Amino acid sequence: MYVVIKKGATKNEIDVLKQYIKDTDHGILEVVDKGLKKIGIMGKSDVLFRDELMKYSAVERVEKIAKPFKFVSREFKNEDTIIEVKGRKIGGTDMVVMAGPCSIENKEMIMEIAKVVKENGGEFLRGGAFKPRTSPYDFQGLGEEGLKYMREACDTHDLVMITEIMDTREVELVGEYTDIFQVGARNMQNFSLLKELGKSGKPVLLKRGMSATIKDLLMAAEYIVAFGNKEVILCERGIRTFEIATRNTVDINGIALLKEKSHLPIIIDASHGTGKRSLVEPVTLGCILAGADGAMLEIHKNPDCAFSDGDQSVDFAAFKLLSKKIQKTLEFKESLKCL
Amino acid sequence: MYVVIKKGATKNEIDVLKQYIKDTDHGILEVVDKGLKKIGIMGKSDVLFRDELMKYSAVERVEKIAKPFKFVSREFKNEDTIIEVKGRKIGGTDMVVMAGPCSIENKEMIMEIAKVVKENGGEFLRGGAFKPRTSPYDFQGLGEEGLKYMREACDTHDLVMITEIMDTREVELVGEYTDIFQVGARNMQNFSLLKELGKSGKPVLLKRGMSATIKDLLMAAEYIVAFGNKEVILCERGIRTFEIATRNTVDINGIALLKEKSHLPIIIDASHGTGKRSLVEPVTLGCILAGADGAMLEIHKNPDCAFSDGDQSVDFAAFKLLSKKIQKTLEFKESLKCL
Amino acid sequence: MYVVIKKGATKNEIDVLKQYIKDTDHGILEVVDKGLKKIGIMGKSDVLFRDELMKYSAVERVEKIAKPFKFVSREFKNEDTIIEVKGRKIGGTDMVVMAGPCSIENKEMIMEIAKVVKENGGEFLRGGAFKPRTSPYDFQGLGEEGLKYMREACDTHDLVMITEIMDTREVELVGEYTDIFQVGARNMQNFSLLKELGKSGKPVLLKRGMSATIKDLLMAAEYIVAFGNKEVILCERGIRTFEIATRNTVDINGIALLKEKSHLPIIIDASHGTGKRSLVEPVTLGCILAGADGAMLEIHKNPDCAFSDGDQSVDFAAFKLLSKKIQKTLEFKESLKCL
Amino acid sequence: MYVVIKKGATKNEIDVLKQYIKDTDHGILEVVDKGLKKIGIMGKSDVLFRDELMKYSAVERVEKIAKPFKFVSREFKNEDTIIEVKGRKIGGTDMVVMAGPCSIENKEMIMEIAKVVKENGGEFLRGGAFKPRTSPYDFQGLGEEGLKYMREACDTHDLVMITEIMDTREVELVGEYTDIFQVGARNMQNFSLLKELGKSGKPVLLKRGMSATIKDLLMAAEYIVAFGNKEVILCERGIRTFEIATRNTVDINGIALLKEKSHLPIIIDASHGTGKRSLVEPVTLGCILAGADGAMLEIHKNPDCAFSDGDQSVDFAAFKLLSKKIQKTLEFKESLKCL
Repeated sequence: MYVVIKKGATKNEIDVLKQYIKDTDHGILEVVDKGLKKIGIMGKSDVLFRDELMKYSAVERVEKIAKPFKFVSREFKNEDTIIEVKGRKIGGTDMVVMAGPCSIENKEMIMEIAKVVKENGGEFLRGGAFKPRTSPYDFQGLGEEGLKYMREACDTHDLVMITEIMDTREVELVGEYTDIFQVGARNMQNFSLLKELGKSGKPVLLKRGMSATIKDLLMAAEYIVAFGNKEVILCERGIRTFEIATRNTVDINGIALLKEKSHLPIIIDASHGTGKRSLVEPVTLGCILAGADGAMLEIHKNPDCAFSDGDQSVDFAAFKLLSKKIQKTLEFKESLKCL
Repeated sequence: MYVVIKKGATKNEIDVLKQYIKDTDHGILEVVDKGLKKIGIMGKSDVLFRDELMKYSAVERVEKIAKPFKFVSREFKNEDTIIEVKGRKIGGTDMVVMAGPCSIENKEMIMEIAKVVKENGGEFLRGGAFKPRTSPYDFQGLGEEGLKYMREACDTHDLVMITEIMDTREVELVGEYTDIFQVGARNMQNFSLLKELGKSGKPVLLKRGMSATIKDLLMAAEYIVAFGNKEVILCERGIRTFEIATRNTVDINGIALLKEKSHLPIIIDASHGTGKRSLVEPVTLGCILAGADGAMLEIHKNPDCAFSDGDQSVDFAAFKLLSKKIQKTLEFKESLKCL
Repeated sequence: MYVVIKKGATKNEIDVLKQYIKDTDHGILEVVDKGLKKIGIMGKSDVLFRDELMKYSAVERVEKIAKPFKFVSREFKNEDTIIEVKGRKIGGTDMVVMAGPCSIENKEMIMEIAKVVKENGGEFLRGGAFKPRTSPYDFQGLGEEGLKYMREACDTHDLVMITEIMDTREVELVGEYTDIFQVGARNMQNFSLLKELGKSGKPVLLKRGMSATIKDLLMAAEYIVAFGNKEVILCERGIRTFEIATRNTVDINGIALLKEKSHLPIIIDASHGTGKRSLVEPVTLGCILAGADGAMLEIHKNPDCAFSDGDQSVDFAAFKLLSKKIQKTLEFKESLKCL
Repeated sequence: MYVVIKKGATKNEIDVLKQYIKDTDHGILEVVDKGLKKIGIMGKSDVLFRDELMKYSAVERVEKIAKPFKFVSREFKNEDTIIEVKGRKIGGTDMVVMAGPCSIENKEMIMEIAKVVKENGGEFLRGGAFKPRTSPYDFQGLGEEGLKYMREACDTHDLVMITEIMDTREVELVGEYTDIFQVGARNMQNFSLLKELGKSGKPVLLKRGMSATIKDLLMAAEYIVAFGNKEVILCERGIRTFEIATRNTVDINGIALLKEKSHLPIIIDASHGTGKRSLVEPVTLGCILAGADGAMLEIHKNPDCAFSDGDQSVDFAAFKLLSKKIQKTLEFKESLKCL
């Protein structure tokens, strides 16, 4: 349920309304949607409550949200959400390229990659310090040391940092370094983690689980929002199907559908989505044209020598070309709107 | 296995070679690949046979094909195959839009749709006369009557006709009317039908089965080629996954991979692929950018009144706009090659 | 829609009713369900028609069937259907084991296997003469020669023959030899073939398609019934999922659900269902306990030397033991009903 | 890698060996396998290390484990692992029935259910205090209050308690109450949680993720073992496929395969696996016959009034009958071994 605020309502009138909502044990979510102020009301609500709300002078009207995912839906907020991080905008027309290595291997490599990312217009550095590995015997990441290297690389090259968080106990630690939290596919329904990130005060990039439906993904995003954090970025990284020629199956339908159903920005990760270097470019560009707002990419100086995921990493030359094509595709997508 | 013909080989030298191949009970598939003449040799072949071939003056070299799908692979023929039908080219840079109704309902409707298809640059009319319906109690198509209407519509508006074939016994009948045979997803591994179409002398559009891997699809195409027909068009129309928000899941990875592995043209059918009108445009455009050579589209004057598949059909106005965007996307894709 | 016949209705009264149904262009399907005579009415029917039917003296009541699959559902016929072929009963408490090689390789092998099948209480000989192979270059079966060998093996050892039919044009030929037609997974929605088999007059074993839902399977069975053939045997042979450790995923839920929704007998084919010799026994027994009425099994003297599907074939010794366990499991399942 | 200890080796000889392994920074896992003492060695090991180990008098031989899942495989330990909890054995021939409600709703209900479980031979009480719910707006469980009620119910009726753990921060708290930790499907690859449970000192029931392969499941189990806890119970609860008639698809192949590849006990949860009350019995029994060592069941006094998962819960009468059938099926399975 949400309330649309009257055009001329005073701050005081709105405060009185907000106080009432809080006093009845409901959560509050304020947004501006195409010039309209709206207040989302979280928690059980019934007809009576609706009638009560209508009595407040700040209230233009009260609306129910039919979908199970409520505050991430376009029913609540029609306008695209643009998330600003250190001056960069995610979800608008600006190019968003989040690039970097799968694992941070040492300081030199992350410094070098950061430079390459920046030079090619990628304003976001991705990289794993805590790695979710299928085997307990595989490299598990550098941990806090990796975070430090990454922060330094971001500061040196004026980049926005994004890295994975896997444990509720590490939210504080990782939050000291990173600008954006990343939730991996395996933790998409780690609800304890989602709740904690809802309170973290930093944007969260939420990767779709390997067998998560679009509805599951939006419900997981709803968790983060319901616990206080409006800044959620969705990420399609492929789902599991019977097809074995590619690591996963990128759900381009899902991207188009997410764009229709939700106001949140969407990123395509074709590195994990395809698992095959040669497919990263066509799939990234295709998904951007179909609706994605930006791309996440695994890059590596010598992909064949990477500690992890080398098969799906592109080298610097390929990244340079791909960045240009992403920029062109974003412009082309805008141009189609004028037809 | 295939033979590369020497640059200066005479017709006579080549004929002697071909006679030898036939005399040893092997099939022949002649192609030109980037200026080189190649002869594919079908059937069991061993080392001895290879040595024998090398003795012929027309032979430059003999190559093995490692892939299980042989003559549809880029290993055999690197250059994109362009299929010409009544002057239209499928697989090159020309726009390929195959549009029409799911079922032919009556003469008037198919005549009207044909006009709309032509006006918007779609040179191919699709439509079902024999319909594969999940239920025996659903409308099964108009049969030969439908073929007649469609032929008349194509002749009136100078369009290329494509329609589904479901039964080996109907290849001759349908072949009297259609320009291109379509094999539906449910019949992708109806090997008897594939063999018959291999002998039909007309191009075949082969839809990927709902649970067919990319390899399965290429092997099915190989059947048609192995039985004598080089003109196969692949079609991605979505696969079955756990996702239920869309009718199927379009495999954009698969499109990019097919383009990499095979020289055959690929069409995206986002109507069946998404099952949702609003997703047809973004998914069609995205898949074209990722590699598809053209689009198949279900269109209907009043989608909500269609006998079948109304939910996924677009109306004439949407089709008009989408056709323009397809043209623009094809041009944009070409422009990226020059970066 | 169906009609329940009054207990004391005379043959003449029933004939008058049947004539009326035929005169109104409807098909007829007669069954006995727990002592009640029922007549299924196929084709469009409306309220008016129902009222007309009630006027006939033979009619006790008229019932609608809510499910999309009508005459294969328990809504129409609650009692288990038992199909008799040459004195053997499929669908009751008798052991049903359909065993044999994937492909008939030569006369000697099929004669030897037939002997082994018979000795171990398997009354049905399975074997492929026309083989649906993924590759056009693989062994395609012996064709009519194979059918002859198989018929001779069945006659010699008093076995019931079951073999695959792939082409509408071969129904007559195969029907001259076989006792039961088998429709493979790849042809489950080859509706032309299903219609033809509806008119064939012989029982049909219908394998579930690799990505067919339970509803799809029942609709395919409905095709055969709607075209005149009540004797359909369902077969679960595994579906395609993301799991790659086994060839397919046997859907034990589906078996239990089919038993609940349909009166038709169900066979488990764990050879194709698992693709792994060592799993055939546990999965066969488990599925029988969950509801399957019998088992289809690939057996071979030297599985490792089989022309096709050797990995999933069991040898004669394993078959001997498994047959005993199947018999025990069927008895155990009966005993549980008395708890 | 593991070491087989010589038959007559003294405690002192073994201690010297163990000290050496620890001194070289390797972990130790001691098991007895068919009378043989084995010491699993965790961590990087090379040829040199192997030669060094052979010098110790306690060492009979050194073996490599080829599989990626090492210490949960039958390659390391051939004998079935039997886990004892408060006198009950999981993994042997004893009946293992873990029954209870999806969510603990209040004290009365859990006390009543505990009584029913005990009366029918179920020695394990399951129930959720912390619930992983797809929606943030659904009932999230009673938390610690629920744990208290459940502990009391277990103590009153002499039952073993099993409940879900979702957060690394709650391991200590939940561990104060429960006898067995349950890891839900959504957390199967929450590696932080798995590591923590490896150090918990209590048995862990690990549910297969919705899109986890058998290998993924065994690798997740390996995490718990690698971090120090040998007592892992695997649980099949259905995977996600295209089939929508049932909530999930129980992978009976997977159960048979797990039994072949791993020495760990396996439980079938057909409540979540089917999502349909009427299918719980046939699927539970079938899976036990195929290899499962026991069953997990959702039961409720009035399933239609349950706070969650009512559709898949069976009532007390059905549970009573099913318990008997489970017992009979376990006995029948044993009897088959003597054929």
